[in-house]
Amino acid sequence: MSLWEEIHQQPEVLSRILESNRASIDYIAGRLRDHAFSYVLIAARGTSDNAARYAQYVWGSRNQLPVALAAPSLFGPYQSPPQLDHSLVVGISQSGESPDLLAVLSEARRQGRPTLAITNHAGSPLAAVSDLVLELHAGPEGAVAATKTYTAQLMAVAMLSAAMDQDPVLTSEELAAVPANVDTVLAGSEPIASAAAAVADVDRAAVLGRGYHQATAFEWALKLQELAYLVAQPYSTADFQHGPVALVEPGFPILAIATEGALYGDLELLLGDLRRRGAEVIALSDHPQCPADHLMGLPVGMAEWLAPIPAIVAGQLFTYHLTVAKGLDPDHPRGLRKVTRTL
Amino acid sequence: MSLWEEIHQQPEVLSRILESNRASIDYIAGRLRDHAFSYVLIAARGTSDNAARYAQYVWGSRNQLPVALAAPSLFGPYQSPPQLDHSLVVGISQSGESPDLLAVLSEARRQGRPTLAITNHAGSPLAAVSDLVLELHAGPEGAVAATKTYTAQLMAVAMLSAAMDQDPVLTSEELAAVPANVDTVLAGSEPIASAAAAVADVDRAAVLGRGYHQATAFEWALKLQELAYLVAQPYSTADFQHGPVALVEPGFPILAIATEGALYGDLELLLGDLRRRGAEVIALSDHPQCPADHLMGLPVGMAEWLAPIPAIVAGQLFTYHLTVAKGLDPDHPRGLRKVTRTL
Repeated sequence: MSLWEEIHQQPEVLSRILESNRASIDYIAGRLRDHAFSYVLIAARGTSDNAARYAQYVWGSRNQLPVALAAPSLFGPYQSPPQLDHSLVVGISQSGESPDLLAVLSEARRQGRPTLAITNHAGSPLAAVSDLVLELHAGPEGAVAATKTYTAQLMAVAMLSAAMDQDPVLTSEELAAVPANVDTVLAGSEPIASAAAAVADVDRAAVLGRGYHQATAFEWALKLQELAYLVAQPYSTADFQHGPVALVEPGFPILAIATEGALYGDLELLLGDLRRRGAEVIALSDHPQCPADHLMGLPVGMAEWLAPIPAIVAGQLFTYHLTVAKGLDPDHPRGLRKVTRTL
Repeated sequence: MSLWEEIHQQPEVLSRILESNRASIDYIAGRLRDHAFSYVLIAARGTSDNAARYAQYVWGSRNQLPVALAAPSLFGPYQSPPQLDHSLVVGISQSGESPDLLAVLSEARRQGRPTLAITNHAGSPLAAVSDLVLELHAGPEGAVAATKTYTAQLMAVAMLSAAMDQDPVLTSEELAAVPANVDTVLAGSEPIASAAAAVADVDRAAVLGRGYHQATAFEWALKLQELAYLVAQPYSTADFQHGPVALVEPGFPILAIATEGALYGDLELLLGDLRRRGAEVIALSDHPQCPADHLMGLPVGMAEWLAPIPAIVAGQLFTYHLTVAKGLDPDHPRGLRKVTRTL
């Protein structure tokens, strides 16, 4: 299946996950309550690592769980792995095959820690070494660049948060609205295509997001690198202000995700400042006054914590159109295979 | 004091820290033994966040301590901070003034967790909210871009690891060799200056390192962004292979740090492969056969875990020379102040 088709499958995939995964996620949340753990260690690479960034914010802010992103090389090459007392160890991987993630989960199991795999392949080696398996049911992903498995991972992370949550009615409604919001993004993609065409000559950019959207910034940047060969560097907006803001000269391209919520005001101030310095700002926002040279609208009324799902779909569309505008082939990125095995 | 002078002060600063900080670091290590904690949560921004990355590998591999890098916005804007049971919470900051780091340390203290500040300013707000303070004694840093306070932070992280270590004689010898290795880098800087001059026209690059040198890659990239306005994107080599490797076309600049140790063989294979794809490889290495178009030698015989200190000094020199070769002023980077306060 082509990248374009998989991008457009996402409302259907997300609806299916909402229906068919609820019972298994409730079961996993129940099993997790049996274990005493104080923090979560997540092992992941590439796109799945961006789902881990999302989990860091969602589980951190909604479930008060500190989340650490593992340094897998501590578990393989250096051969003196950390002591994982009081941890829950989670592996996130589309294929469930990368040896470095297996090393983290295997060591966790050896130390007697509870382990959870979030994967599209329940028969994978990662699932085999995990106590609990959250199978994504996103269907086979044919394109080299991950799209539907990323939004499926975010949905699984969000549903697991909801299953551990105190306010199940509200969160159920919020989760149920996600597929329709993704549909809205897909149906109104013309401003996205024209923004992409307008910046087709750029070869470098910064991608800014914060909080829940730090994951969106990192995943959007990764798609831009893989498909449009753009040196697109993602930053939390706070980190960007600690040095890299020096990059901004007249015409410097800034991509940003700024949706309503606790951090919107900060983003708005920063983007206004960057425009005064001459940056060319391309923004994804649900706010009609978001300061930008090219504003790509997102659906209004999204729950703040779930906005990264519709937002990255807009980022995928932007990347697709930019790739085509550059005369590149989104289904055959240079030098990549679907499954990457690192040690 | 100018950036050039502060880069060259580093052997003296590191020697001073080795002498004058040993007693206080032994005291802190002793106090930490009184506390039960299973993991370390570090809050830091910018250059200090790269010292936190170094701590993740050093404390992880040498002291078996898992290290999590905090998401400070969970502690401020989202107002429902994670539960920090079983953590030691560490703030790393040159100035000790950024409000987002203060929010993390204050919340940790409110929850009754042990807190440690690593800062150049013992009178700072960060130090005031911390149980334990490791003062860097790096002397005042005048240049906007941090150099000597970064290597001072790495040295403090390394000395704290040694103070918690089982093999004090060997580690003392290894630590004592660091200032001389930095001296060697500073004395033999001509190949670095000529490599920088050879690539003065590039405006984008990837910076690769792994393990202990993930910190080196991130800090080198940050200097290149701040001073030479290069969109220099840092990656762990494993992450780079999960997608971003698609960026590589003939002439694409790759900066890499590859020193002897558990991960050298992997790096050598990857750099050879990238050269076959036509990348222009600029490498910092202590290995004379490291595959590179421009090889900048590092001292031989460095302890693997301490190599990031001499290596980043070479990266600072490269950045300085590149900045000057581009006709820019390394003492006045565009749009930056010395102390950045983010919320």
